Amino acid sequence: MSQPFFERHQALLEQALKAIAERGYWSAFPESPSPRVYGEGAAEAGKAAFDALLGKPFPMTLPAAHGTTGAERSPYGFPLGIAYPKVDLDPLFAAIAVAEAGWRKAGPKAWVGVCLETLVRINRRSFEIAHAVMHTTGQAFVMAFQAAGPHAQDRGLEAVAYAWDEMRRVPAKAYWEKPQGKNEPLRMEKRYRVVPRGVGLVIGCNTFPTWNGYPGMFASLATGNSVVVKPHPNAILPLAISVQIAREVLAEAGFDPNVVTLVAHEAGDDVARRLALRPEIKLIDFTGSSANGDWLEKNARQAQVYAEKAGVNQIVIDSADDIKAVARNVAFSLALYTGQMCTAPQNIYVPRGGIETGGGHLSFDQVAQALGESVQKLVGDPARAVEILGAVVNDGVTQRIDAARSLGPIVVDSQAITHPQFKDARIRTPLIVRLDARDRAQYLKEWFGPIAFVIATDDTDQSLAIARDAVREQGALTLSVYSREPKVVERAVEVAEDGGVALSINLTGGVFVNQSAAFSDYHGTGANPAASAALTDAAFVASRFRVVQHRMHV
Amino acid sequence: MSQPFFERHQALLEQALKAIAERGYWSAFPESPSPRVYGEGAAEAGKAAFDALLGKPFPMTLPAAHGTTGAERSPYGFPLGIAYPKVDLDPLFAAIAVAEAGWRKAGPKAWVGVCLETLVRINRRSFEIAHAVMHTTGQAFVMAFQAAGPHAQDRGLEAVAYAWDEMRRVPAKAYWEKPQGKNEPLRMEKRYRVVPRGVGLVIGCNTFPTWNGYPGMFASLATGNSVVVKPHPNAILPLAISVQIAREVLAEAGFDPNVVTLVAHEAGDDVARRLALRPEIKLIDFTGSSANGDWLEKNARQAQVYAEKAGVNQIVIDSADDIKAVARNVAFSLALYTGQMCTAPQNIYVPRGGIETGGGHLSFDQVAQALGESVQKLVGDPARAVEILGAVVNDGVTQRIDAARSLGPIVVDSQAITHPQFKDARIRTPLIVRLDARDRAQYLKEWFGPIAFVIATDDTDQSLAIARDAVREQGALTLSVYSREPKVVERAVEVAEDGGVALSINLTGGVFVNQSAAFSDYHGTGANPAASAALTDAAFVASRFRVVQHRMHV
Repeated sequence: MSQPFFERHQALLEQALKAIAERGYWSAFPESPSPRVYGEGAAEAGKAAFDALLGKPFPMTLPAAHGTTGAERSPYGFPLGIAYPKVDLDPLFAAIAVAEAGWRKAGPKAWVGVCLETLVRINRRSFEIAHAVMHTTGQAFVMAFQAAGPHAQDRGLEAVAYAWDEMRRVPAKAYWEKPQGKNEPLRMEKRYRVVPRGVGLVIGCNTFPTWNGYPGMFASLATGNSVVVKPHPNAILPLAISVQIAREVLAEAGFDPNVVTLVAHEAGDDVARRLALRPEIKLIDFTGSSANGDWLEKNARQAQVYAEKAGVNQIVIDSADDIKAVARNVAFSLALYTGQMCTAPQNIYVPRGGIETGGGHLSFDQVAQALGESVQKLVGDPARAVEILGAVVNDGVTQRIDAARSLGPIVVDSQAITHPQFKDARIRTPLIVRLDARDRAQYLKEWFGPIAFVIATDDTDQSLAIARDAVREQGALTLSVYSREPKVVERAVEVAEDGGVALSINLTGGVFVNQSAAFSDYHGTGANPAASAALTDAAFVASRFRVVQHRMHV
Repeated sequence: MSQPFFERHQALLEQALKAIAERGYWSAFPESPSPRVYGEGAAEAGKAAFDALLGKPFPMTLPAAHGTTGAERSPYGFPLGIAYPKVDLDPLFAAIAVAEAGWRKAGPKAWVGVCLETLVRINRRSFEIAHAVMHTTGQAFVMAFQAAGPHAQDRGLEAVAYAWDEMRRVPAKAYWEKPQGKNEPLRMEKRYRVVPRGVGLVIGCNTFPTWNGYPGMFASLATGNSVVVKPHPNAILPLAISVQIAREVLAEAGFDPNVVTLVAHEAGDDVARRLALRPEIKLIDFTGSSANGDWLEKNARQAQVYAEKAGVNQIVIDSADDIKAVARNVAFSLALYTGQMCTAPQNIYVPRGGIETGGGHLSFDQVAQALGESVQKLVGDPARAVEILGAVVNDGVTQRIDAARSLGPIVVDSQAITHPQFKDARIRTPLIVRLDARDRAQYLKEWFGPIAFVIATDDTDQSLAIARDAVREQGALTLSVYSREPKVVERAVEVAEDGGVALSINLTGGVFVNQSAAFSDYHGTGANPAASAALTDAAFVASRFRVVQHRMHV
């Protein structure tokens, strides 16, 4: 059977396979929104395509749709006005059952080929998707383009590469000949078929619908499963476009487009839970709150759940060559997308006796002040600040900022900024509050948003001990350490490996702790409560398919 | 760090890696108990070693042991009288915590090296273990030698090979250089460490303590986890010997032997459940009843559970070249180890209008009669029969035989045989009962033991439809089809792939449906209720470890 999509993208797949084997720098989809890369007029065309979607029914025909749903509102201050088809689950799953019959038999090359073509077409619509992400998540435009476009596409491709890498190691057939002493040997032919688990459910989040959504979506699809995408009610559009593209590609490849479907729904209804408990759903990829993730793990027993939940990310400052370089780097991590990244740092541990630096001893207050000044400098110019901060994604964030202000002395206060272009956008700068190590009840929980604590500890030993316990008990996606002492760095590595969290060491340049690069950095480990899986490794894909064999004598 | 065990067995590991990639015939450990293979006197020495264990405390020192436990009784009619150390769980896990600190840091080569050396030493004790298995499970000696010795060792090695194959693909480090246009590139070094999940629990079964126990035990150990082995109270000895060997190897390699521990306990106590709910336990490998397996999956939420549970194995007879060859093969599958294999067939579907054969049309009754005659012939000579049948493992089996007798007309009755050597052994021959397709309540559940049903169906279409539903709803480890029609075979393949069960086609020679060969046949699929995992594939090992990275600029 000819596999035109697979063949078209085989070179890309080979590169991706090399990248996951080596995990050095590689990217399939360029992150620069420059016209030299994406073509003259691509930016304008993408913006026009996004604008054309506003205030209309979204162009997607789903089985048994009746009526519409959708009440997305841009964090930049206007309603999107897009109406998505509303579906009933019973007829939807009946249609999926029809669709999956052909899909599950098509085999790895067909599955992977459709995934690769879909990713390449998604890449071509990166500008349109960037606007969709900006106006559902609040990410500033360039970040929306990069993180929700090429970087998310890279993460999707990474999942496809891991899936292929696992599936290709299952031989299609084997000849088995067992010696029988002087008698004729036993001879059999055995055939092995990769079969999918069933239907995968992708539960999208509000802040990173594509970056966190693509890995599960493509991992399930590449292993022959059908996929139901359930976006967050506030961030439907980016995934709706992605599903639309996948359905186009499926149809062109001769498959029933209902292999990939979209279930848009209203905030507060029970659609997510009803979906998660469907017997057809065998895989769930979830990003969101710990409460919802725990509920899925407890109740959706028929499915394998891959969940990314809340956590407490931490920075241990022990010593530094240049405190200003440290503070600049940390300030950017706190400010980027208003601290609304699951990888953004929250707790910054500093010995209360101060630290040694290349410029001499600094007191705790001087370290805190350096951090505060860097934040103020970074967000001092509103026009520049909004391109880093983006907008506040929901009321919870502003409420938490208000609540956090009273926890302790304020190092730097959060301020409202007016966006030069979108006057109704809610923009907030980071808040840094001083706490003491004993205030565990305050800082040992997630304060999602631009909220950080500079926490006075007895010494770096205590900082590391708190960090280790926090990773184990609260979960964490990132840990960062600053030290000039190799022994301290070594201990931090031990803490990271014991707790099961990725560690960044002495970041003072153009890499930030909240960034994780596809094909090189594992996002999450699966080894602490913040995530039950890593993006992306073998464990993320290997259980999405099974092998069924038959054997006969020859 | 030198890894003498890894280096010693690297060639063996390479062969195993080639075998899992190709899945043709390969075996590391010879199945023939011949002195030409295992050495003159090996058989006698093994018997003597087994005899020396009887009626004494088992030589193993476990942390915080107090008192003893153990009431194993040979199915051949005598008590073993072996007393195992009894341990309290809290001090045991305190000792494991001490042991695992060094083990988890040792890395894949050390883990795999210890596993390989342990397997090779287990192989040297195959005769001793064969007697231990014979007198705990009831397997006849040659089967106990092969299935519980070399075949089980092969399955353990297969798990080690898969584990290594996954771990070796995680690079130890990477150099990451990201271009920055005209600026200097960003440069980082990243290091990736494979870290274990925690403690693995292996819950052994009564019938195949080593064959079903080694895959999980070695998969967990090879990925750096500590392992607690909890044998079935009636089949402690084979796993106790295995644990003893692992502890010796660990100590020689400079590790704390408490990396691998044994928890022997009394039947009916709550030790298994208390173990399974320990927060330290992150992996559970279970073989046993569906009730216990379901309980683990529901309650041991802190752990990844790999469970093999009950199922209904089936044979579809559509047509045949030679009914006698079919009947001989099926009869052997029913009789082998008194049908007490999880892979043994139970339901045999035959069209009530009969079948076509190379010798002309046969009525349903003639087919049933051929099966019955083959069974009678196979077990007609008691001295020969006991070497196939072995002994009944527990009262449940004889009770089920009695209960099954009244379900329908008896095709061939189960008979008690006196073992020429062990007069108190309970030996039973297979029972075949005739049922009709409509008697679903009777045959759509597992009748563990030498109980089979010849079931009259409307036609092969109905046979296949029943088989498919049974696989999906009751679970199955094996499906077998006999047909001269390529189209029927094709449909059977579809049924197998839809239901997710391994299929054997037209077995009339020296291969039996209940046999699965390591490195070639997947045992279980993970795709139907009989097992949540396959022995062994990537999915069986990939989630037993995580990767933790750290990165720094260079």
